[in-house]
Amino acid sequence: MNYKMIGRLIAPILCIEAVFMLPALGIAHLDGSNAAVRAFAMTIAASVLVAGLLWIGTSNVPRRGFYAREGFVLTGAAWIVMSVFGALPFWISGEIPHFVDALFETVSGFTTTGSSILLNVEEMCRGMLYWRSFTHWVGGMGVLVFLLAIVPMSGKNEGFTLHILRAESPGPSVGKLVPRMRQTAKILYLLYIMLTVLDVLFLLLGGMPLFDALCTAYGTAGTGGFGIKADSIAGYSPYLQNVTTIFMLLFGVNFSCYYLLLLKRVKDVFNDEELRTYVGVVVVSALLIAFSIRGLYHSLGEVLRVSFFQVATVITTTGFATADFNQWPAFAKTILVLLMFCGACAGSTGGGIKVARILLLLRSFRRNLHQNLRPREISNIRMNGAKVDEKVVSNVDAYLIGYMGIIVVSFLILSLDGFSFETNLTAVIATFNNIGPGLDMVGPVGNYSAFSDLSKLVMIFDMLAGRLEIYPIVLLFSRSTWSRK
Amino acid sequence: MNYKMIGRLIAPILCIEAVFMLPALGIAHLDGSNAAVRAFAMTIAASVLVAGLLWIGTSNVPRRGFYAREGFVLTGAAWIVMSVFGALPFWISGEIPHFVDALFETVSGFTTTGSSILLNVEEMCRGMLYWRSFTHWVGGMGVLVFLLAIVPMSGKNEGFTLHILRAESPGPSVGKLVPRMRQTAKILYLLYIMLTVLDVLFLLLGGMPLFDALCTAYGTAGTGGFGIKADSIAGYSPYLQNVTTIFMLLFGVNFSCYYLLLLKRVKDVFNDEELRTYVGVVVVSALLIAFSIRGLYHSLGEVLRVSFFQVATVITTTGFATADFNQWPAFAKTILVLLMFCGACAGSTGGGIKVARILLLLRSFRRNLHQNLRPREISNIRMNGAKVDEKVVSNVDAYLIGYMGIIVVSFLILSLDGFSFETNLTAVIATFNNIGPGLDMVGPVGNYSAFSDLSKLVMIFDMLAGRLEIYPIVLLFSRSTWSRK
Repeated sequence: MNYKMIGRLIAPILCIEAVFMLPALGIAHLDGSNAAVRAFAMTIAASVLVAGLLWIGTSNVPRRGFYAREGFVLTGAAWIVMSVFGALPFWISGEIPHFVDALFETVSGFTTTGSSILLNVEEMCRGMLYWRSFTHWVGGMGVLVFLLAIVPMSGKNEGFTLHILRAESPGPSVGKLVPRMRQTAKILYLLYIMLTVLDVLFLLLGGMPLFDALCTAYGTAGTGGFGIKADSIAGYSPYLQNVTTIFMLLFGVNFSCYYLLLLKRVKDVFNDEELRTYVGVVVVSALLIAFSIRGLYHSLGEVLRVSFFQVATVITTTGFATADFNQWPAFAKTILVLLMFCGACAGSTGGGIKVARILLLLRSFRRNLHQNLRPREISNIRMNGAKVDEKVVSNVDAYLIGYMGIIVVSFLILSLDGFSFETNLTAVIATFNNIGPGLDMVGPVGNYSAFSDLSKLVMIFDMLAGRLEIYPIVLLFSRSTWSRK
Repeated sequence: MNYKMIGRLIAPILCIEAVFMLPALGIAHLDGSNAAVRAFAMTIAASVLVAGLLWIGTSNVPRRGFYAREGFVLTGAAWIVMSVFGALPFWISGEIPHFVDALFETVSGFTTTGSSILLNVEEMCRGMLYWRSFTHWVGGMGVLVFLLAIVPMSGKNEGFTLHILRAESPGPSVGKLVPRMRQTAKILYLLYIMLTVLDVLFLLLGGMPLFDALCTAYGTAGTGGFGIKADSIAGYSPYLQNVTTIFMLLFGVNFSCYYLLLLKRVKDVFNDEELRTYVGVVVVSALLIAFSIRGLYHSLGEVLRVSFFQVATVITTTGFATADFNQWPAFAKTILVLLMFCGACAGSTGGGIKVARILLLLRSFRRNLHQNLRPREISNIRMNGAKVDEKVVSNVDAYLIGYMGIIVVSFLILSLDGFSFETNLTAVIATFNNIGPGLDMVGPVGNYSAFSDLSKLVMIFDMLAGRLEIYPIVLLFSRSTWSRK
């Protein structure tokens, strides 16, 4: 294991995090929240100090010996370090006095989950709220991708860059937009920033205050879902809710589609099987839910707004709320729970299994059926007209096993706390798929504060494993990662 | 598709079913239950008539053109035909006036599920109760295996026999006990009969009346779970409950282990990885549950008896009840729900995913982790020291996909009925894994009568798909099965 190289890459990540905290520090200063200012300042100082020590301790590292294994470990470790430092301001300032809670909230932020342990979010000062929402934005596209986008690297490091991008980016296979990985990372972040700015502008146009617009846009862009109001998005105007619905859905699209649009390859975008399935699932689910809840609201417009909002917030794994869907009929609730598993497109900021992976799983099953009927025929799995590498297929199959395994073990541990079956199961699903709210006690109007520390740690693991798609986190705990063989 | 050959094999199955109904007819006659006698007589006549027509209509069929495809279709079709005819006595006699209910009850019997739509089982006449319990016994080892065991076939038909045994027998791969498949089928049924007789004897020794002992043993042997009392097994003495616990566990073991014991290959049995895991899971789960429910019962003996019984009944997917585990703490309930998925050993009469398949899934995931770390290394999956065929591995991976897919779709359709989340989810899990009782409305003291016909049909599909391990039933609905290509 190339520890030095990993340490050397974690140092700049801590610096980036420190820089990202500066706006929050500024807001806290303007508001005169002294405890918050001190907490941010201390955290920034600590981050820079640790980064400096790491940098000095790992000087003269040859850029060799960095393989898939190092890529996974770096990613897993970077996210854990980032979360621990990100949690410090909440804890030091006393806004979240218990450290496990602060860590839960921060991991929930970075992993774009949006599950909260806060009993009343409106009690938090604005600097903290800003930082809390901004973690979504950073986590959405990924901090390592950001690092790759801004740090100049020589052409020799393509393989190295690929390992990192692969470990941090969501989806069954990483699509290179352009041959050079660094350019890919840059393009991704430029698109991400552009879309976020657009979202902010549309929110401002609807009369939302700047601070609210920024925080809401961060939550939307990262498909995170932390709100800054006790009623999440429900108190905003229908226009603002609809803007949020549309942008949530946009951030759930594979970013390579936007790049293709910029290149005017519109036909390729329209023919993208994942995108078509995603749109289809959204529309059909929203209409089914609208039908199911038609009696609960006053007008057809309201029914459609609420159901499309809810479908968007769940399938993109954002987790904003405008309605307490806990009170909806079983059919509507079940659709939402199933959408929690589905997730958005690969290469988006959303979580969940991902539409592309589900398509591959279904095709893998169909091929298997066919092979059982006609054992001597050999058939390939195709996606968007091209043959899918068998390695990707077997990775996707294995992914489902790991995915189910994590749910089973987490569900069992959470049940020790003695809450209801529905609470425990949806808490695991909602955190692991990076959604946020579940049902029953952890429903849209509930929160995660009542769980034990053990359960919170399990859910922290689940959130990280969900965002990083299992491998980087599970491999940290696997013996073969650390063996010398 | 070789329709004639399939028809020609369904004919003797109908005759076997008619013969199997004779004891129930006799009991109904002795009890003077005229409606039941008439219903059985009419069904037997109809079965023989249809069998005769099928036999005449398919004369002179060459024994060629019977492949995997025909094996699956025959198995799926045979089970459906058998269930329809098996449901007739309940329906004709008026004991279950609604045909979908009668079909549900019969499929639940043959698939060894044990889910019931009866509000009060003690109202049913003894002839019907006998038939209801006997369906478990037939379904446990499989009617096609029975056919193979008794019908003499020439050596040329080995491939043909293998296709059928593969389609009907549970587990990731079919273990031939002896080179000749027909001998294998014979040995399986002899072992099955021996164990059933032993169970009856032990029950009689404990003072259980003969009729009760027979019905209970059928339910135990098939790991079915239909009781003949309103309180299932709870009213019997602790000795009888313990006997049932032990026999449920014994019927959950791969029958090839018993064959090895007869051959005195004790070491092979002890080293069987599936058996070791199965025993380990049973003991650990029972102890954890015992700890969790320790406050609910009077003595340690009672706690252990209840928890081992409950673990045995769930992991072997039998579904007898001695306690209303709906009232237990969340942790104990969660263990039971997870055991519902686990299931017993491959090659046993139990349902569920099967321990062997879970071991293969975990190993497949572990290999995948390893391959992600070291992409150039090639490693095999091993079981009991031998390399597992890659075809078996990819079948198991695909199995999990189909398994999850069926649960998702069924869960969605059941939710239309508007019952609770816990009811719908556990109803699907309990029927699909052939267990019987779930939680909440379908808990040990509840039943399945309140669901709509649509939901019942879905669960009928699930029970069949669960018992036949997906392929034979799903392939009946797959276009490629019926295509000429």
